[in-house]
Amino acid sequence: VSDAAPEPINARLEAFSDGVFAVAITLLALNLAVDGPGHGTSLARQLGDRWPAFVAYVVSFFTIGIVWVNHHALMRGLRRDQGRRALPFLNLVLLLFVVAIPFGTATVADYLRAGGSDAHLAAALYNAIMLGMAVSFGTLFVWAIRADQFVRRLTGAEARRATVRFGIGNLVYVTAVGVAFISPPASLAISALIDVYYIAERTPSGGS
Amino acid sequence: VSDAAPEPINARLEAFSDGVFAVAITLLALNLAVDGPGHGTSLARQLGDRWPAFVAYVVSFFTIGIVWVNHHALMRGLRRDQGRRALPFLNLVLLLFVVAIPFGTATVADYLRAGGSDAHLAAALYNAIMLGMAVSFGTLFVWAIRADQFVRRLTGAEARRATVRFGIGNLVYVTAVGVAFISPPASLAISALIDVYYIAERTPSGGS
Amino acid sequence: VSDAAPEPINARLEAFSDGVFAVAITLLALNLAVDGPGHGTSLARQLGDRWPAFVAYVVSFFTIGIVWVNHHALMRGLRRDQGRRALPFLNLVLLLFVVAIPFGTATVADYLRAGGSDAHLAAALYNAIMLGMAVSFGTLFVWAIRADQFVRRLTGAEARRATVRFGIGNLVYVTAVGVAFISPPASLAISALIDVYYIAERTPSGGS
Amino acid sequence: VSDAAPEPINARLEAFSDGVFAVAITLLALNLAVDGPGHGTSLARQLGDRWPAFVAYVVSFFTIGIVWVNHHALMRGLRRDQGRRALPFLNLVLLLFVVAIPFGTATVADYLRAGGSDAHLAAALYNAIMLGMAVSFGTLFVWAIRADQFVRRLTGAEARRATVRFGIGNLVYVTAVGVAFISPPASLAISALIDVYYIAERTPSGGS
Repeated sequence: VSDAAPEPINARLEAFSDGVFAVAITLLALNLAVDGPGHGTSLARQLGDRWPAFVAYVVSFFTIGIVWVNHHALMRGLRRDQGRRALPFLNLVLLLFVVAIPFGTATVADYLRAGGSDAHLAAALYNAIMLGMAVSFGTLFVWAIRADQFVRRLTGAEARRATVRFGIGNLVYVTAVGVAFISPPASLAISALIDVYYIAERTPSGGS
Repeated sequence: VSDAAPEPINARLEAFSDGVFAVAITLLALNLAVDGPGHGTSLARQLGDRWPAFVAYVVSFFTIGIVWVNHHALMRGLRRDQGRRALPFLNLVLLLFVVAIPFGTATVADYLRAGGSDAHLAAALYNAIMLGMAVSFGTLFVWAIRADQFVRRLTGAEARRATVRFGIGNLVYVTAVGVAFISPPASLAISALIDVYYIAERTPSGGS
Repeated sequence: VSDAAPEPINARLEAFSDGVFAVAITLLALNLAVDGPGHGTSLARQLGDRWPAFVAYVVSFFTIGIVWVNHHALMRGLRRDQGRRALPFLNLVLLLFVVAIPFGTATVADYLRAGGSDAHLAAALYNAIMLGMAVSFGTLFVWAIRADQFVRRLTGAEARRATVRFGIGNLVYVTAVGVAFISPPASLAISALIDVYYIAERTPSGGS
Repeated sequence: VSDAAPEPINARLEAFSDGVFAVAITLLALNLAVDGPGHGTSLARQLGDRWPAFVAYVVSFFTIGIVWVNHHALMRGLRRDQGRRALPFLNLVLLLFVVAIPFGTATVADYLRAGGSDAHLAAALYNAIMLGMAVSFGTLFVWAIRADQFVRRLTGAEARRATVRFGIGNLVYVTAVGVAFISPPASLAISALIDVYYIAERTPSGGS
């Protein structure tokens, strides 16, 4: 790096975000922990009883992984020398929700089998965090379009299609929050289906 | 990288610091954890009672995020080939306080509603860590000016303005420590206001 | 980075994976923790009783380290501009198992000395995670061959030799899962021997 | 990065090591955590009683920071295209001890005030981990000299001086382990003094 050309924030923003994504995705596994021997419940029983923890681990792992992939797709399409003010703070709001995912995951895993209003609330909390993440990612995307931050400017049709897609994603998460108050497992299943959808689909970016 | 031009420490210092910032900011969420079912308190009640944990999470998250943005702004303005001795150690002192933020956050979140001298002490501890961080960041900045480390040398006016700004920031944190012994919530509110101020403002650097 | 040449995913995929590997390998040490004083058991006794935790720590540390080295060897051989769809998701499946290693390690360390069916299950769980990791690494490798992703195309003989080697590795882990139901320590010893084998051997890659 | 020139392992080895150093140094703060209200001990009392945790935090934080600085100094002096076999595994042994530092730190912090043989053992364990780290760093350095890995070959005098310095460092840690059985606080003080010494001194490398 030459002294004359100071590094734009993009590279470090990606490095910092990668670190946050990596730590958050790894902390998910902390909730798999079982009690040691001498607590009166066999290991087989504990692992069987804790199936929601394993399901929630896999769903949240792929959710964070997908957001990371979409984050990469978005970032690589951005100009390298502008938008320094808004970019890191909009990104920080996204990370605020990403970092809360292990908390939401542990809560839904613990309360899913408890039933009653606690299970409803736990599933709603989980999908509310996901919704917050989806909305803040969409905000970052819309900002990039409005502030003309893409290296290759999106056509009106591309921008509309992307906006529609984000809108649908957000609506599905809103639905998942609502469904949580009827059936927590169904609410978690919706989150899993969103993962499957995003693995098949891909966020458009100005860069490819 | 050519064998003839050994990499300056800046790149790895940023990578290491990014890692520390990323881990510290992610560990903040550990303190959001609630007890599992069967502890006699409903999830709704637990989440309601633990509102200081959520407030403290958001405040500390943005504090670390802002310090990261300022750290980037400072680092990208520095020369790439000098100051190897003092730079990593002054940076290490800054990180010592950054890493302590999740501890301070968890303590204030746990004790804010306890009231009495424990709540006072917790809020004072929290803002003392913030003050330590602000002072060590300011020290790094002043060192960079004095040791002529900026690629584009700051004018006397710029350096004075930056020094005044850091001085005010430090004074506000000193005030927050003092206010902690009168009203812990007011002390935490001052920290939140400092975040808002720094999101609106930006640290000057030689690089832009 | 020029605006005209958007960064391929490889660099960030490596950075993100490095982060996950680094966090997972560091979380292994959390399971070494002993109880503080006043729990009725001397520190010497605790450290002596917890020898499986130290053995499992070393075995898992080198396992993650070896996978990291093999991951580097594989990644550096890949083309920089293709395979963006499948690569991050196959990599994510690998990381899903890497992140579960601290959980498996803690479980086997806690239950190894308990004996009975719990010890059998713990050792089987541990090696099942290792098997999942080995299979997903092999899948990534086979995908790279089939999708012609290596910069320097492997010869038929090289590809066959690598496939045979992965097949043997997977078979040994299958054996370790089976042996777990006869002798948990022998099952753990097999994992340790696989580490020794891979430190001596090296994954081939198109790049060297 | 051109397809024709595969990246040497050095860059990712540094990135991975940076991640491990960053996580290990941040996990040190987990041991600062105090009990929440309602446990019968005031916060002021808890913070006062737990002074060894704060002292151990600062000492270990600077130890890891110094090893990171020395690691950088060593790595930047190495050739970029050789020694791929031994380098990652010798580095892994170093990291095995770095990752164990938070465990040693928590143990000595918990047991220092317990007195008796437990305090002796805790301080010995702490400095034994430091010794393991120092020996594995020295091994990496000696390997780099013997395998002619430095870009700028060290003179015989430089190599001898560096070897003597590492030898002295190791002897001091051996002494600290021995002193642990007489006076745990004195043993911890020796570790602190080694930090002060290394902040003043600097590891030589082929690169500067």
